[in-house]
Amino acid sequence: MKNFVYNIPTKLYFGKDQIKNLPDLLNLFGKRVLLTYGGGSVKRSGLYNTIIELLADYEIVELANIEVNPRVDSVRQGATLCKEHQIDVILAVGGGSVIDASKMIAAASKYDGDAWDLVKHPKRIEEVLPLIDILTLSATGSEMNASAVISNTITKEKLNVYNKKLYPHASICDPTYTFSVPKNQTAAGTADIMAHTIETYFSIEDDVYIQDKLCESILKTCIHYLPMVLQEPENYDARANLMWASTLAQNGIISFGKGGPWSSHHIEHILSAYYDIPHAVGMAILIPRWMNYVLNQNTVKQFAVYAENVWGITQQSDIFKTARLGIRETYEFFSNSGLPLTLPEVGVKSNEHFSEIAELASPYLTKSYISLSKDDIIRILESCMNPFYN
Amino acid sequence: MKNFVYNIPTKLYFGKDQIKNLPDLLNLFGKRVLLTYGGGSVKRSGLYNTIIELLADYEIVELANIEVNPRVDSVRQGATLCKEHQIDVILAVGGGSVIDASKMIAAASKYDGDAWDLVKHPKRIEEVLPLIDILTLSATGSEMNASAVISNTITKEKLNVYNKKLYPHASICDPTYTFSVPKNQTAAGTADIMAHTIETYFSIEDDVYIQDKLCESILKTCIHYLPMVLQEPENYDARANLMWASTLAQNGIISFGKGGPWSSHHIEHILSAYYDIPHAVGMAILIPRWMNYVLNQNTVKQFAVYAENVWGITQQSDIFKTARLGIRETYEFFSNSGLPLTLPEVGVKSNEHFSEIAELASPYLTKSYISLSKDDIIRILESCMNPFYN
Repeated sequence: MKNFVYNIPTKLYFGKDQIKNLPDLLNLFGKRVLLTYGGGSVKRSGLYNTIIELLADYEIVELANIEVNPRVDSVRQGATLCKEHQIDVILAVGGGSVIDASKMIAAASKYDGDAWDLVKHPKRIEEVLPLIDILTLSATGSEMNASAVISNTITKEKLNVYNKKLYPHASICDPTYTFSVPKNQTAAGTADIMAHTIETYFSIEDDVYIQDKLCESILKTCIHYLPMVLQEPENYDARANLMWASTLAQNGIISFGKGGPWSSHHIEHILSAYYDIPHAVGMAILIPRWMNYVLNQNTVKQFAVYAENVWGITQQSDIFKTARLGIRETYEFFSNSGLPLTLPEVGVKSNEHFSEIAELASPYLTKSYISLSKDDIIRILESCMNPFYN
Repeated sequence: MKNFVYNIPTKLYFGKDQIKNLPDLLNLFGKRVLLTYGGGSVKRSGLYNTIIELLADYEIVELANIEVNPRVDSVRQGATLCKEHQIDVILAVGGGSVIDASKMIAAASKYDGDAWDLVKHPKRIEEVLPLIDILTLSATGSEMNASAVISNTITKEKLNVYNKKLYPHASICDPTYTFSVPKNQTAAGTADIMAHTIETYFSIEDDVYIQDKLCESILKTCIHYLPMVLQEPENYDARANLMWASTLAQNGIISFGKGGPWSSHHIEHILSAYYDIPHAVGMAILIPRWMNYVLNQNTVKQFAVYAENVWGITQQSDIFKTARLGIRETYEFFSNSGLPLTLPEVGVKSNEHFSEIAELASPYLTKSYISLSKDDIIRILESCMNPFYN
C-alpha cells in the first residue's frame, strides 16, 4: 500500500432540506454572491427560485449556461464578473461541469493573468474565492475533491486541473434535487461513478485488498440502484445511495493508498475535446473496449475477481472465460441503461481524427495499468465504432 | 438513508516514515509538548527514542502509564501538567486508550472544574488544546474521530464522550509501528475493528445498501489479514490494511446515513467498568452471544446476508441455518485468533454483578437494533460464562 495524506476540508451536508444551512454557510464569507449554473434545469426544477427566495437579502450576480464540457471562456467570464462585482463567495448549482468551472472561476478571479494559464499550470493557483455548491447530479464527485476538468475549443485541449486549494468549502447534497434528472443523464452519471471506480480498481498495486473491497462496494451500489431509479426516478433511498456513491468514488476514500495513472479517462478527455461528447457517455463506450484490450495473462486474474465479486459471475473452468463474462456484463449493464454504446451514435462518424487523438493521449498512458502505445489507442478507438457484442 | 454532515477536520498521515512530518505539525502550535503514552511498549519498540531525538529542541513534559481502560485520574493528572507547564500541544503516542485520555486532557486543561464534569457533560467542552497522535495499535479508530471512552473506578462508570472539538488535529499512522504488537493485542484490536463495524452493520435503517457494502468490506479485510499478521507480524501490507480498516470503521465513513444506538458496546462498557477487561476482548466475547440472542424472525434476513457476504456461507435451505452459520463463523474466527471466549477466562468468576450491570446498561438499549431489557442482558451475560459451541 502506498503512503497517503487524508486531508479533505470540504464539509458535506447530505440529505433532505440541507439547503437550510446555505445562508449560514454563505455568511461566513459575505453577501456578494456569484451564482453559477448550467442550461436551465435548475429553473425548471424550482431550485433556482428556492435559492433566490432564501437569499433575498444577498447581492447576487449570475453566470448561466455553463457548458456540459465547461470551457475556459466561461471561466474567464465568471472571473471577470467576480472582479467587477467584488464577489465574496461563489455558489455553484449543478453537476460536475458547473462545479468544475466554478472552481476555476474561484482561482482565476484572484489571478492577474489569463485563466488558461492556471489550467495549464495549476501550481500557479495561490489564492481562491470560497466556493459553496449545491449538487444536482450524481456523477463526477467534484463536490468533494480538488479537481476540475476544463476544455479549450481553440487548442482542442481538455485538461484535468488539480490543486488542494480547489476543494469546495461546503457542498449541499440533497438527493431530491436529482429526482428530475432525465433517464439518459442519470444513466450517464452512474456510468461516470463506475468509470472512476473501475479506473481506481484496476491498478498495478498489490495487497490493496481494502481499497478493492471499497471499489466493489461502490460498483455494486451502482448496479443495485441504477435500474431502480430508471424505473422510479423519485425513489429517495436509491437516489441517496447513488449520490453518496458518486462522492465516495472520487473524494479519495477508495483510492488512498492505491493510485497510479488512469487509462480510459485520458483517451476520453481528448476524444471529447474533439467531439464535445458528454464525458460519462464517452467513458461508457470506452471502458468495456479498454477492458477487453488490456485483458491478458497478467491481468486476467484481476478481471476474473472483478467478474465474480462485482457481477456475481460463477467461476468458469477457463479463467479467461470468467474475465470476459465480467467485461460483457459491464457492457450490457451500460447498454440496458439506455446509454449509447458506439461512437457513431454520439456523432463520431469516421476515424479521421483517431491518429491525432491517440498521439495526444499516448504520453499519459505509458505508466498506466497496461501501458498503451499510439497504435493500441487507435485500435481501442476503432473498436468503439461498432457494437461490441451481437 | 438518514441525513448527515461530513466534516472531519483530522489530517491523516498514513504510511512509512510519516513521522518526518511531526516537527512541522507541532510547530503550528508551539514548542511546549505534553507527551502521553501507556505502559512502556513505545520505549521497547524504539519509537520513544525516535521521538525524543526528533524533538530535541522542544520542551517535553511526559505523562506515562495511561491505563488500558483510561481513567479520569490520568486525565486530571495530564490536565494539571498542561496548566503547570503552559503546554502548547499534546502528543499522544499509543493506541485508543492513550489517544482517548489525551483528548480529554486536551479538554480538561482548558476547564476550571473537574475533568469528570466534562465526561458526564461533554457539551461543557468549549476549548481544547491541539492534539496530535502517533498511532501504535489498529483498533479503536480514535485517531480520526471525536470520541473518547473514560472510566471512573470510584463510580464504576465507563462513559463515551463525544464532542466535535475532540478530533485530533493530525494523526500519524505508520503501520510499521504495529509490527511489535503482540499476537493477543493484534487479535483484540482486530476484534475491536470488527465490533465497531458489526454494530454499524446491524441497524434498523432500510435501504442503506452502500453503507452495508462498506461494512462488509471492512469485515472482509479483517478476516483476510488477521490470520496473516498473526503468522507474519512484520507483513507491511497486511498491517497497513488493518490500520486503514481501523480508521475507516470509526471515522464515520461506514456509518454516515445510518446510525442508531449500538448494542453490545453499552453492555461491554459497564462490564469492563466492573472488571477492567480490555474493551476489545469483552466485545469478542459478547458479540456472538448478542447475535445469537437477537436472531429472530425479523432479523434473520440480515443475519443470513451477513453470513453469505461476510463469511461466504452458501445459502442453506433454512434461512435460520444460514444465519447461525454466520454467527458461528464469527465466534470461531475470534477463537482461532487466540482470543479468550468466556468471561471466566478474563477474571469474571461468577454472575454476582450481572444484575447491576444489566440494570445500568438497559437504559441505553431500549432503542437499539433489538430492544433489550434488563433480563435480556442478564441472559446474554450468562451465556458468556461458558464456551458457546462444543
